[in-house]
Amino acid sequence: MNVNNKKYRAIWVENQRICMINQNLLPFEFKIHYCNNLDETCFAIKTMITRGAGSIGAAGGYAMLQALWENKNHEKLFSELEIAKKKIDSTRPTAVNLTYATNRVLEAAKISKEFAISEAFAIADECVEQSKKIGIFGNELIKEGFKIGTHCNAGWLALVDYGSALAPVYMAFENGKKNIFVYVDETRPRLQGMRLTAWELQQQGIPHAIIPDNAAAFYMCRNEIDIMITGADRIAANGDTANKIGTLEKAIVAKYYGIPFYIAAPSSTFDLFTKTGNEIVIEERDEDEVLYIYGKNDKNKMENILIANSGSNAKNPAFDVTPAELITGFITEKGIIKPTIKEIKKLIEQ
Amino acid sequence: MNVNNKKYRAIWVENQRICMINQNLLPFEFKIHYCNNLDETCFAIKTMITRGAGSIGAAGGYAMLQALWENKNHEKLFSELEIAKKKIDSTRPTAVNLTYATNRVLEAAKISKEFAISEAFAIADECVEQSKKIGIFGNELIKEGFKIGTHCNAGWLALVDYGSALAPVYMAFENGKKNIFVYVDETRPRLQGMRLTAWELQQQGIPHAIIPDNAAAFYMCRNEIDIMITGADRIAANGDTANKIGTLEKAIVAKYYGIPFYIAAPSSTFDLFTKTGNEIVIEERDEDEVLYIYGKNDKNKMENILIANSGSNAKNPAFDVTPAELITGFITEKGIIKPTIKEIKKLIEQ
Repeated sequence: MNVNNKKYRAIWVENQRICMINQNLLPFEFKIHYCNNLDETCFAIKTMITRGAGSIGAAGGYAMLQALWENKNHEKLFSELEIAKKKIDSTRPTAVNLTYATNRVLEAAKISKEFAISEAFAIADECVEQSKKIGIFGNELIKEGFKIGTHCNAGWLALVDYGSALAPVYMAFENGKKNIFVYVDETRPRLQGMRLTAWELQQQGIPHAIIPDNAAAFYMCRNEIDIMITGADRIAANGDTANKIGTLEKAIVAKYYGIPFYIAAPSSTFDLFTKTGNEIVIEERDEDEVLYIYGKNDKNKMENILIANSGSNAKNPAFDVTPAELITGFITEKGIIKPTIKEIKKLIEQ
Repeated sequence: MNVNNKKYRAIWVENQRICMINQNLLPFEFKIHYCNNLDETCFAIKTMITRGAGSIGAAGGYAMLQALWENKNHEKLFSELEIAKKKIDSTRPTAVNLTYATNRVLEAAKISKEFAISEAFAIADECVEQSKKIGIFGNELIKEGFKIGTHCNAGWLALVDYGSALAPVYMAFENGKKNIFVYVDETRPRLQGMRLTAWELQQQGIPHAIIPDNAAAFYMCRNEIDIMITGADRIAANGDTANKIGTLEKAIVAKYYGIPFYIAAPSSTFDLFTKTGNEIVIEERDEDEVLYIYGKNDKNKMENILIANSGSNAKNPAFDVTPAELITGFITEKGIIKPTIKEIKKLIEQ
């Protein structure tokens, strides 16, 4: 998508270097981060210079590509790739897309080095293709004049290009639908909404406003939100969906006001081995993410400041699980489906 | 209540000075602010050194007291008080408690200077008495081991002593109920929860945790919140309640999970001239309250920092209206009532 009126992907390869938008600096600074070798790419994944399911998968594929390039002894290629895979996988142990990508390149290497290289490139390209299709299907749900609510960042930064939850918005805008407006939840505690989603939308020139997470019900109650679309971290076989903390709250409020609530995600997000949301373990993150916040001071310098009562502790669950009954449908690269066991099974087997 | 193990009110009179806890500095610094004359008290109300419905009312009464003290010419007492009232009322034009307080002292002055002085003192004392009664009635709802959820700050800082939403918690704790725990919503954008409520609870030694506003549904869904209690800014004749932005969202989520949702407020918060919540105009505040945040940096210095994408706008509605159907009951100084037109009318006429 656009950055300063130039087309970018979140991550790509150029002159045998892995290039990525440094997401740690956004929205305060736009900078390309270059990884000259496998180690540098591993570091970039670990420190979240690139982030988001699809972009992490692409980074994993490209890191394997670097391992292929760095291989000097053809006899040892496979064992060296195995070592590289372990190294890459350990950078973000819970990121399924990473293991998926490294596995795929390793398997291809059993056939040939050339096939492995083409697979490494294919991972990012397929992510873009899927995101585009999510956009095309989701676009059908968006009418002219629609006000769309979203939570967290499920945009192109997270999925190489287009995104999941934002892809339908981009497609509707590209198709010339008029008066599209996006309500961007700030998404405490890490503020991915007011930082990344807002930045993405601004760069595309799509009208939007940041709202405090607390204000979503206020706008829904006034009929100012026509449709809610968020992304997903994992979707169970019955449609229960784990996503950024706060998604559940928005889904309950949307149900109360009869506002359609969609989850946009590539079909790889469905995990049929997880039967229901009850089986999903929720990560509890460091309380300092709630108690402290970083940003830019009036001297243009980044500062990390304490914002809470210093004697109090905070809790910081990273995700919550939205039950299938609150979800209107899933927007996938294969089409839009209802949140039922049957339709999900059919989608995956398709 | 306690601060560093010493008893305080949020505002009081000492040696002919109005003394108040400087709420602008909390929780980062505990400091008493002294107002030596009417002008200084007006300034303190205007700049929110003291805040919260009850504390503002008390400040208004005490400011009139200063006008009485400053009066040199007994002949001109009433006209001077009228001028003082106008000046005081204009510091926070929408605060009903302020007008109520200044009116009451002015009316008393028609009878005698002495009566006016006693009325000025009575306003704060009655606020404390009412808060205490809210605590006594609300305490009945809290069982041992209860986990209580609250939003914003409706504690003793806002109501001279005890508070409204927090009064039942304080009373339960004072009565020795074991294993009381409070989930404190951070309350974006101004963070009154993680700043003031968390500070109050810490000073009383009441176990609590700050949670992101987004996490309330997560804890409700896990049966970790037994009861929700918030304050109110205005309650319409039918029970619809205006309160800090986000209250509506919590009430909808509580309803979904069958968790009792109570509003604690003195009966003066009911406004029978407002028939339903639809008539309540919601103030839209400056977007900078959402886009910027202040806190303490690692050099112990206060900083105001930009936390959002700089090219985006924000919306900042200050309140929302929770419909009566989502409210389990009102905890008032006269008892607990159901949110019906009939019970509200009876309460006010009582």
